[in-house]
Amino acid sequence: MLTDYLQRREKLITEDRALRIDRIRANYTPSELKADEVVRSIRAREAITVWGINHDHVPHQYPGMEFLNAKDIILWTDLYSKIVSKMPKGGLLHVHQNASVEARTLLDLALSHPAIHIRVPGLLDAASLETVLPIIQPIPVEQYPAADVIGITDVLYTGGWVPIMKARELFDHALGGPAGFDKWVLSAFMINPSDAYDKYNTPMKIWLKFGSTFGVTDPIIRFVPIQKEYLRRFILSSIDDGISYIEVRTSFFKKYILAEDAKTKLELRELLLIFREVTNEIKAELKAKGREDDFAGMKIIYNTLRIISPEELESELEQCSRFKQEFPDLIAGKSCGFDLVGHEDGAECKPLIDYAEPLLRFTSQHPDIPFIFHAGETLGDGTAADMNLYDAILLGTKRIGHGFSLVKHPKLMQICREKKIAIEVCPISNEVLRLTSSMPMHPLPIIMNQGIPVVLSSDDPAMFNSMGLSFDFFQVLVASEVTGLLTLGQMARDSITYSMLDERSKCAAMDAWERRWAIFVEEVAAMDP
Amino acid sequence: MLTDYLQRREKLITEDRALRIDRIRANYTPSELKADEVVRSIRAREAITVWGINHDHVPHQYPGMEFLNAKDIILWTDLYSKIVSKMPKGGLLHVHQNASVEARTLLDLALSHPAIHIRVPGLLDAASLETVLPIIQPIPVEQYPAADVIGITDVLYTGGWVPIMKARELFDHALGGPAGFDKWVLSAFMINPSDAYDKYNTPMKIWLKFGSTFGVTDPIIRFVPIQKEYLRRFILSSIDDGISYIEVRTSFFKKYILAEDAKTKLELRELLLIFREVTNEIKAELKAKGREDDFAGMKIIYNTLRIISPEELESELEQCSRFKQEFPDLIAGKSCGFDLVGHEDGAECKPLIDYAEPLLRFTSQHPDIPFIFHAGETLGDGTAADMNLYDAILLGTKRIGHGFSLVKHPKLMQICREKKIAIEVCPISNEVLRLTSSMPMHPLPIIMNQGIPVVLSSDDPAMFNSMGLSFDFFQVLVASEVTGLLTLGQMARDSITYSMLDERSKCAAMDAWERRWAIFVEEVAAMDP
Repeated sequence: MLTDYLQRREKLITEDRALRIDRIRANYTPSELKADEVVRSIRAREAITVWGINHDHVPHQYPGMEFLNAKDIILWTDLYSKIVSKMPKGGLLHVHQNASVEARTLLDLALSHPAIHIRVPGLLDAASLETVLPIIQPIPVEQYPAADVIGITDVLYTGGWVPIMKARELFDHALGGPAGFDKWVLSAFMINPSDAYDKYNTPMKIWLKFGSTFGVTDPIIRFVPIQKEYLRRFILSSIDDGISYIEVRTSFFKKYILAEDAKTKLELRELLLIFREVTNEIKAELKAKGREDDFAGMKIIYNTLRIISPEELESELEQCSRFKQEFPDLIAGKSCGFDLVGHEDGAECKPLIDYAEPLLRFTSQHPDIPFIFHAGETLGDGTAADMNLYDAILLGTKRIGHGFSLVKHPKLMQICREKKIAIEVCPISNEVLRLTSSMPMHPLPIIMNQGIPVVLSSDDPAMFNSMGLSFDFFQVLVASEVTGLLTLGQMARDSITYSMLDERSKCAAMDAWERRWAIFVEEVAAMDP
Repeated sequence: MLTDYLQRREKLITEDRALRIDRIRANYTPSELKADEVVRSIRAREAITVWGINHDHVPHQYPGMEFLNAKDIILWTDLYSKIVSKMPKGGLLHVHQNASVEARTLLDLALSHPAIHIRVPGLLDAASLETVLPIIQPIPVEQYPAADVIGITDVLYTGGWVPIMKARELFDHALGGPAGFDKWVLSAFMINPSDAYDKYNTPMKIWLKFGSTFGVTDPIIRFVPIQKEYLRRFILSSIDDGISYIEVRTSFFKKYILAEDAKTKLELRELLLIFREVTNEIKAELKAKGREDDFAGMKIIYNTLRIISPEELESELEQCSRFKQEFPDLIAGKSCGFDLVGHEDGAECKPLIDYAEPLLRFTSQHPDIPFIFHAGETLGDGTAADMNLYDAILLGTKRIGHGFSLVKHPKLMQICREKKIAIEVCPISNEVLRLTSSMPMHPLPIIMNQGIPVVLSSDDPAMFNSMGLSFDFFQVLVASEVTGLLTLGQMARDSITYSMLDERSKCAAMDAWERRWAIFVEEVAAMDP
C-alpha cells in the first residue's frame, strides 16, 4: 500500500513542478548535478551555523531575512563568498542608471571634483542631522565661494555653497568630523535599516525616503565628468560581479545634463554619446585582455516618469524613436525599449490606461521599439497599479518590470507563460520597498512554478546597498528548498534568452556564458561542502 | 482604436476573474448590488477618514495593517460596526476548541470558581512580570491553603497554591494591584502586539509565545465546570457574531478532563457528553425564542498532535472511530473528521508522510470519517510543512486547514479547484503568527482567483484577541478593491456548502442563512454610505 502511495506521491510532485525551468532542462552534466549537491549541503550547514545562531545588533536572523539587516552576515557566508558571488550571472535587465553605483563610490567621485559644492537649507546640529538633506551639485567656477569660506556646521554659516571637500574637512567634530559628514551624506544617498524597518515601514511611506535619495544624488550624476566615471564604475563593478550584459533603464525626464563647465546644458543626445563611448572603451579594454566573454555590451531602455501628460508622452515617444535611429546599437540591437516609471501606488502617478492612446499609436508606427513596462509593483488587489498589468500585456510589453502582483491573475500568468513574457523580479528591491517582509514571503516561487520566465534584477542597488546581482541571487537561493544552483543557472540563461539582443549577439552571449558556467560548475563541484 | 482596446481590456479582465466565486454567481438581486455599492463607498471613505490619518500609539496605519495594532481603530469604523459585525457569517469551520473564548471571559470564569488556584514558580516583581508565567488550575478541596494564605507578590511567598481570587486581591499595588494582576495574567493568555511585532517577530519564534498561552489556559479549561461554561460562552458569542454553525477542532491528545472535585480524571467520552449537552441546551433555548435560524449546531473534528508516533496514531484513530459510533451527531452527521495539528515548521512535529501507513489503512476501513488536515501553514518552499500539502491531498483531505503555501503549487491548486477541496483561510492567525506581515500581503486573492473554494476562519481567536469571524472578514474586505460584500456573502455560502453537514441539514442551514442574508442586505442597501 505504501509503495503504491509513494509512487503516486512522486508522480504528483513531478506534475506539480513540471513547468519549472530547472525541471524542463533535463540534460544536466554530472558536474552540474554535483555542484548543485555541494551548494545544497553548504546551504543546509549554514542554515544552522550561520542563521541558527544569534548575531549582535540583528534582531531576528533567518535565511532570507530583511536584507539591510542581513548584509553583514551574508558577506561572511561560504554560500555568498565562495559560490554566489563567483557565479556568472548573465544579463542584468532591470536596473536604473541613476541608482547603479555604490553610494560610497559616488561620494568619492563628488569629493574628487572641484566643481562639486554643497549647501544646507537649515541649521545642522545633532538633532537636525537626521532630517536635513544636503544639496550637492556642480556649480560654475565664477560662483565658487572665496577660499576662506566657512563650513556648513559653523555657527556663522548662512546657507551658501561650500566646496564639498572643504565642507567635509570642516565638519564639526561634535558631529563626527569628516567621518560624521560621510555618514550623514551617505544616509541621504541610501535607504538605511531604520528607514525601511522602522521609520517608513510601509509600502507607501518608504517611497518618501526612496524618492528623496534620487533628489540628493541626481544633480551630482547629471554632470558630464561624473556621469562618465559613474557609468564606467557601474559597468566595471557589474562585470566584477559576473554580469555579462546590461539593459539599463535611463530616464529622459529631465531634459539636459550639465557640461564640464557646470553651466552649459547639453541635450540628452550627449548622454547617449557618453554611453556609447564608455561602453566601447570597456569592451576594447576587455578585448585587449582576452576577456571578451566577460561583457556582451549595454543597451538602454528609454524611460520617463508616469506623471507626464499623454501629450507630453507623444513627444517623448518621438524622441525615443529619433534616438533609436541615431543610436541603433544603444537603444538597442534588435532594439531596446520604452518604459514609464515611478511609484505606481503614488497619487501623482498615472495608470498605463491613461496613456493607452499614444502608446497604441506609437506601437503601430514603430513596431521596432518594444515596450518593457513596469507594472504591478504593488500589494494592491484591483488597484490602478495592479490593473497596470492588464494594460502592459495588452499593449504588448516584452517583459514586465516587477510584476509583483501578477500572481493574483491566472489569465495573465497563462499569457506570460505562453507568450514568454519574462518577469523582471527584483527580490531585494521588493523587500526594502516593503512589498514583502522577507524573501520567504516573496511570490517568486509562485511565478516560477507557473512556468513563467524570470530574470532576477537589482533595480536600484545604490539605494539598497545591494550592488551587483549576487545579493539578489543569494536571497533567492536561501529562501527555498526547491531552488538550487541549477535553478539560478537557468535564470542566468533566461536573462540572455529574454534580453533585447539580436539573435546573433544573443547566441554569442549565450555561448560565452556557457563557457564561463562550465568552468564555474567544475570549481563548485570540486569543493568540499 | 481606443474603443476596440477598451473592449479587449474588459474581456481580458473578465477572463482573468472568471473563476472567482463572486463572478460565478450572476443572479444578484438589485438589493445585493446596491448593498455592495454602499459597502464599497464606506470602504473608500474610511480609507481616507480612518486609515489616512495618524492615530496615537499606532506606528503606521493602513487598511489591512497588523491586526493587533489595528483592532482599536477597526472597532470604531462604520464598516466594522455597521456592516461586517452584523453580517450572517455562515459556518465557522476552523477553530480550536481550547482557544475559542475571549481571554477576559476565561479569566472571569477562573475567578468565579473556588477550586481555581494559582502559583508562581519564581519571584514576581516589576522586572520578572514580563517573563514569569502563572500556573493556574483547579485543585481538590483538601489541598486548599489555609484561609490566611499570603499573596503571590508577598516577600514571604514561597511558591504554594493561592486561590486565584485572593491572589488577585492581594496583588502588590506597586505592580498595579488587581488591575495589574489581570494585565499580567491576560498577557500570558494572549499574544500581545509587542510579542508579535517585536519580541517574537518571526514565524518560528512566535510559536514559542503561542505555545505558552495554551500551557497557561488549558489546565483551567479542562475542568468540567469551567469546560461547560467555556463551551457555552463560545457558542453563544459565535451566534452573537452571526455564526450559525461550527465545526470545532477538539484535541484528544491529553487523555482526561478533571471532574468537579478537581481530582477525578474523567475519560474523554465525558467531554463529548458535555459538547452534546451544551449544544442541545443552546439549540433548545434558541428554539424557545423562535431563533432556530441562528444556529444549525456544532460538530467536532477530532484531533491530536503531530508529535505522536505512528503506533500511537493507530489507537487515536480507533478511539475516533469508537466515538463516532457513539456520537454520530457530534463526530458526524455525514460525519465530522480527523486532523493532526501542531507547529508544522517545528522540529518536534512529524510530517504527514510519517503517518501515511496508518492513515491509509484507516481510510480504507472507515471511509465515513473524513480527514480534514492542517497542511502548508508555512512560508517554506519544499520544506516538510510545505510538502504536507501533497500528502493531505493524496490522503483524501476534504478541506485543508490553512493551506498557506498552496499558492506555490499549480497542480495542487488545480486538484483543489476540480475536487472542491475548500481552503480554511485564517487571515488574522496567519498575520499574528507572522506568515504574512499584513492582509495586503496575504495570498488569499491568489487562491480566490484560481477558483478554489475558501472558508474564512478564526483558528485561535482567544490568543489573537479576534473573537468571532467579523475581524477576519473585515481584514479581507479592506485589503482588496476586487472583493466586496458579495464576495463575503459567497464565502459565507461556501462555509455551509463545504461543511460536513449531511445534505438535508446543509439545505436547512443554507435556507436559514439565505433568509438572514436577505434581511441583512436590505438593511445595508438602505444605508446612507
